[in-house]
Amino acid sequence: MIDNLGLYLDYYELTMAQGYFLTGRGNLQANFDYFFRNNPFNSGYTVFAGLQDLLELITNFTYKDNAIDFLHKYGFKSEFLDYLKNFRFSGSIYSVPEGEIVFPYEPIIRVEGNIIETQLLESVLLNVINFESLIATKARRLKYSAKERKLIDFGLRRAQSLAAIYASRAAVIGGIDGTSNVLSAFLYDLTPTGTLAHSWIQSFENELTAFRKFAELYPNNCVLLVDTYDTLKSGVPNAIITAKELEQNGYKLSAIRLDSGDLAYLSKKARKMLNDAGLNYVKIIVSNQLDEYLIKSLIEQGAPIDSFGVGTSLITGQKDAALDGVYKITSVDNKPTIKLSEDLAKVTLPGKKKIIRYFNGEEKFYADAIVLEDEVDNEIDIIYHPHNPNKKCMVNNLKKELIISKVFDSGEVILKHKSIKEISEYLQFRFSQLPDEHKRFEYPHIYKVGISKKLMELRDKLVMNKDKED
Amino acid sequence: MIDNLGLYLDYYELTMAQGYFLTGRGNLQANFDYFFRNNPFNSGYTVFAGLQDLLELITNFTYKDNAIDFLHKYGFKSEFLDYLKNFRFSGSIYSVPEGEIVFPYEPIIRVEGNIIETQLLESVLLNVINFESLIATKARRLKYSAKERKLIDFGLRRAQSLAAIYASRAAVIGGIDGTSNVLSAFLYDLTPTGTLAHSWIQSFENELTAFRKFAELYPNNCVLLVDTYDTLKSGVPNAIITAKELEQNGYKLSAIRLDSGDLAYLSKKARKMLNDAGLNYVKIIVSNQLDEYLIKSLIEQGAPIDSFGVGTSLITGQKDAALDGVYKITSVDNKPTIKLSEDLAKVTLPGKKKIIRYFNGEEKFYADAIVLEDEVDNEIDIIYHPHNPNKKCMVNNLKKELIISKVFDSGEVILKHKSIKEISEYLQFRFSQLPDEHKRFEYPHIYKVGISKKLMELRDKLVMNKDKED
Repeated sequence: MIDNLGLYLDYYELTMAQGYFLTGRGNLQANFDYFFRNNPFNSGYTVFAGLQDLLELITNFTYKDNAIDFLHKYGFKSEFLDYLKNFRFSGSIYSVPEGEIVFPYEPIIRVEGNIIETQLLESVLLNVINFESLIATKARRLKYSAKERKLIDFGLRRAQSLAAIYASRAAVIGGIDGTSNVLSAFLYDLTPTGTLAHSWIQSFENELTAFRKFAELYPNNCVLLVDTYDTLKSGVPNAIITAKELEQNGYKLSAIRLDSGDLAYLSKKARKMLNDAGLNYVKIIVSNQLDEYLIKSLIEQGAPIDSFGVGTSLITGQKDAALDGVYKITSVDNKPTIKLSEDLAKVTLPGKKKIIRYFNGEEKFYADAIVLEDEVDNEIDIIYHPHNPNKKCMVNNLKKELIISKVFDSGEVILKHKSIKEISEYLQFRFSQLPDEHKRFEYPHIYKVGISKKLMELRDKLVMNKDKED
Repeated sequence: MIDNLGLYLDYYELTMAQGYFLTGRGNLQANFDYFFRNNPFNSGYTVFAGLQDLLELITNFTYKDNAIDFLHKYGFKSEFLDYLKNFRFSGSIYSVPEGEIVFPYEPIIRVEGNIIETQLLESVLLNVINFESLIATKARRLKYSAKERKLIDFGLRRAQSLAAIYASRAAVIGGIDGTSNVLSAFLYDLTPTGTLAHSWIQSFENELTAFRKFAELYPNNCVLLVDTYDTLKSGVPNAIITAKELEQNGYKLSAIRLDSGDLAYLSKKARKMLNDAGLNYVKIIVSNQLDEYLIKSLIEQGAPIDSFGVGTSLITGQKDAALDGVYKITSVDNKPTIKLSEDLAKVTLPGKKKIIRYFNGEEKFYADAIVLEDEVDNEIDIIYHPHNPNKKCMVNNLKKELIISKVFDSGEVILKHKSIKEISEYLQFRFSQLPDEHKRFEYPHIYKVGISKKLMELRDKLVMNKDKED
């Protein structure tokens, strides 16, 4: 889609890459982990999304001549630029599946390869995964609020420009039923959907004529926007006239849409007017600055709403603008490495690792373990809180699953491509396995993520060695 | 950059466009205004940005065969799809210049053409302009905080995915000095910049070796990240050793970078350690969740910081995720039209309009007027608050400027292309003309935007007529 994706990085990655290249360290093998430290929205979980987009970007992460010329201008050396000319990521990537429910500190993606290529992928990986996971998580929260009611993505106009392309995809993964964004629908085979705007109505001499013309054109799927002039005095009465005329021709008005005012009040009034006219089947769609809290409140107030159109808060992940995911080196030439911090929560977990998910007797998620890649799963009986070794948890005899697997092997995508529908269904299934106390909005129960004894000992040994060096 | 940009719209625009086409209304001439209702960030102003990107997208707003096939699948009619196959926007666009300072309710962009083509541009226009203006405004606020200190965009990894491409451009327009985003630097001729990551340091046996190697490679522009292990015990002392070695070879260490911990405390300690070693010239760069308020606070605390790296808050416009700009029809076949609302602030301003900016005796902005396009500027003596006719303001005998002009004429871009530097300089000049009381962060003085008597009368007449119809 975009040329010269090899430039989709932070400048320092190129500086460092050239550094590795020129000092003859380019063949050092490195392992980087992607993980985040906080669930967004004070949520009890995060939905992992963006993997297929990321793999496509990585496959196209190359440099054309004009990119090479550009880098030459900024002083990069010819030998290194010759290397970039033929650059293709030749390493391997391990990942949890898209649509998986994940938690802080888990190494959700693991990138292996030489230190140059693994370093160059840092920003593109963070850029895509942080964002799509944010939006998929937001969408899942909205769906949790809306329950069986429909949700439609109306966010394109308030999206952060081109972010809309991935955002609408991630929204559908998270549980949104349809999108108004036609480009995303085209690229990802989503269902495009929409109603009409005030401009249609204003372009006619009056509202009723505008409604009639629209109903004539789209009798099978006619949604009328009723707030151009006056919702209850003009919009709804004219929609009722139009619905009755549609009935005479054997059609049914699909819905009316409310886009301003007090949506609880107006939806109740409109519902009564429609029902009194024998139009119980006409649905009510609402939109206007909705988020998961407003939707919850509208439903609690008994507002008779069938579908919610959501814009800004869905498509930008408001109030959180970004998932705080990071990409950290954890081994160099198969030797585990560590970054220190005064705060144990900011000390990285060293080495190549995998994630084991444990289930309780009711087939619900019980706890996750971060363990070293070469540990034997069945030998792990106890897991420890990553930052408080006094907190531990028994996991012996529990049903378990390894939730990370290879998706990119020696430069080739090996992940079987999944449709957005499949990914979304996988999330629904996993969400059903997540205990309810992790789903609530206020102070969700914190899901247990522990580390194995071996991983803890390795980290603590490296911390001690580094402290000694000082 | 992206194929099938004609699909970059909300589905209802296509539904309506087909409706106009099939009902023989496709040649109706329409005028749409772009305006917003609230400055973002409780700011006293907004920076207008995104125009050149928008014009490029409009020029490429076309449909390839696979897009036509996609629409066919969703029931669009062959006659209409034949029309789309050859679609190119053939209308005209008026706009204020990029980098202009603008205010709520001003018709910043005006799109004229047939009702189909003007409708189809709705979402792409909102998508780009809302976002770039948000980010340029944020950047201007950051620059206002940082004063003469440097600001660097480090946001790529926390940007909302592809939004990064436009965001880094808008950031530089707003006043950011350099960006780590290489793709944007390449596309818009910005200055790419960067330092190094923890991974470089961790890839060596110890910090000092890592610093030495980096200094050898980049002796002219060496910035050392000092918080991998322990900032004051290890990072700064090792940076000092490296700086002294660079001196022996005739070079000077450029800077150290602090990326965690208390930046006020650490920068003061690090400054003293550097100065005590005779390294007064080594600059201090800081990063880590900075925004305009934190920068202001650090400066007020006397933190000896030379450059700020800003990420999430700049590149996503946190805490606001979107500018609330809208695109509203204001005339059909040269007849002014209006959208009503119980709230006068949400009633649209009808007709084709222009914006006049008035200056006070000190060449500073005094007030803006929204007036009908055919009004004679010199006949406007008084302007009225758009929602409170009792508030008015004399503008006779003031120096004035028309701030909107034609940028797209009958399907062709006629705007002379400007470099980002030129746009950024224009903003700096205009910002110098904005009185200080509109710049402060807390309760900025509200800039006067009025409407002419003729426009007010036209609106009120249309409101009255619509009320009579009910």
